Amino acid sequence: MRIARVLFNGSPVWATIVGEDVYRLNDVYGAQERRERLGRLSDLRLLAPAEPKKVICIGLNYALHAAESGKTIPTEPLMFFKPPTALINPGDDITWPIGTNRIDSEAELAVVIRRKAKLIQPDTWREYVLGYTCGNDVSARDWQDADGQWTRAKGFDTSLPLGPWLQTDVDPDNLRIRGYLNGKVRQDSTTADLGHKTGKLVAFVSRFFTLEPGDILMTGTPANPGPMEDGTEYTVEVEGIGRLTNRMRRPQSYFS
Amino acid sequence: MRIARVLFNGSPVWATIVGEDVYRLNDVYGAQERRERLGRLSDLRLLAPAEPKKVICIGLNYALHAAESGKTIPTEPLMFFKPPTALINPGDDITWPIGTNRIDSEAELAVVIRRKAKLIQPDTWREYVLGYTCGNDVSARDWQDADGQWTRAKGFDTSLPLGPWLQTDVDPDNLRIRGYLNGKVRQDSTTADLGHKTGKLVAFVSRFFTLEPGDILMTGTPANPGPMEDGTEYTVEVEGIGRLTNRMRRPQSYFS
Repeated sequence: MRIARVLFNGSPVWATIVGEDVYRLNDVYGAQERRERLGRLSDLRLLAPAEPKKVICIGLNYALHAAESGKTIPTEPLMFFKPPTALINPGDDITWPIGTNRIDSEAELAVVIRRKAKLIQPDTWREYVLGYTCGNDVSARDWQDADGQWTRAKGFDTSLPLGPWLQTDVDPDNLRIRGYLNGKVRQDSTTADLGHKTGKLVAFVSRFFTLEPGDILMTGTPANPGPMEDGTEYTVEVEGIGRLTNRMRRPQSYFS
Repeated sequence: MRIARVLFNGSPVWATIVGEDVYRLNDVYGAQERRERLGRLSDLRLLAPAEPKKVICIGLNYALHAAESGKTIPTEPLMFFKPPTALINPGDDITWPIGTNRIDSEAELAVVIRRKAKLIQPDTWREYVLGYTCGNDVSARDWQDADGQWTRAKGFDTSLPLGPWLQTDVDPDNLRIRGYLNGKVRQDSTTADLGHKTGKLVAFVSRFFTLEPGDILMTGTPANPGPMEDGTEYTVEVEGIGRLTNRMRRPQSYFS
């Protein structure tokens, strides 16, 4: 199933996409009941398909990306947070934050959580997943290198484009993942190369943090993230899911 | 004014405390209208006085604590996040997380945000503060030293005791702050020793993150945090505000 959040009569609505048609989806975290048709996909605005209370991200989880960062994949998954205020919709602008010199886009497979959970048993993790989507772990590289903690480097407003929708029936361990800078391939890998696989990550993060419906898990980026400038567009594409595109906007002035 | 969140007929209610009496407080982020009396303070259960979407914490912000950590106060404030799932009430147990060897309690002055804001001008920061309270930045020290990112070290469930209430009319730059391990003083300092002062912190974090009503800012801990064991009690006391006490509980087993 394909699950989307769309703007309908000015309000966000959970929906399911069937071909080119969009239907209201009631009780998205529970029974998922399909209701009336809302319109054609091309006529509706897609929103980020998650309402997170927290966003847990994984760093250095592809060997080639870890190597280009001068590291290896950590024995235990390396976790960091983005705040919910980082989230933006498909097509929304990424806004260059005040004071950084270098922004990269990072293509990632993202997982959205369906049910509240703590200490998930490794073989039951699929029950807790609402679906999979594309995420961009936008990163201020100079801050990331200088600050120690990656808080502002990876948590600034607009640093988490997500979408275009959730796909429920893909195998997260075997998906081609690509990142395009202005339409040209920069990142090209497969989630088969994830150091810590998606199911293990879901169980691992739940050892420390109670997961809640709508929470997001970002699984890490492969090699060769794309450097952004004003007007640069980055597209994250995950096989079987779709494409997420966002443009960088560098404000003329920060204080009006 | 003293603003509390209390349990009333089984539901959380914003309230104001006048002497020993507690009154309902409507529109806590806005007009703050005092309504009917709810009861005596001693008869009501106090809840954490915040409903955060994000929690921004500051590290190494007292010179003596930075020095005992082998560091100095960073030129720019060092920020990290706790997730909302870390929050617990006054009197709630802190639960020892699975897999750590060393937990410390850290007394801090906490700020709760009143209004949505981005890029706050330094001289207007007070308009965005709902009030001040006591916070405990509970930290798994072995993870903090080993992980690089402080995500699980400072973000695990129950790692943020907060309370007992918000005080609106204190000067955050001149408050004695103490931490007691089983009733005996361990931390004893004053917010006058904060490297980056509270007002500067509020403006600084808003350069990167849109602040929302209920968000929490933790200002950092002074020297000599308290190591916790099963049954250990830690009390955070901030002058003009009050005392926050929580006990460490180490589960016999994590999987039932």
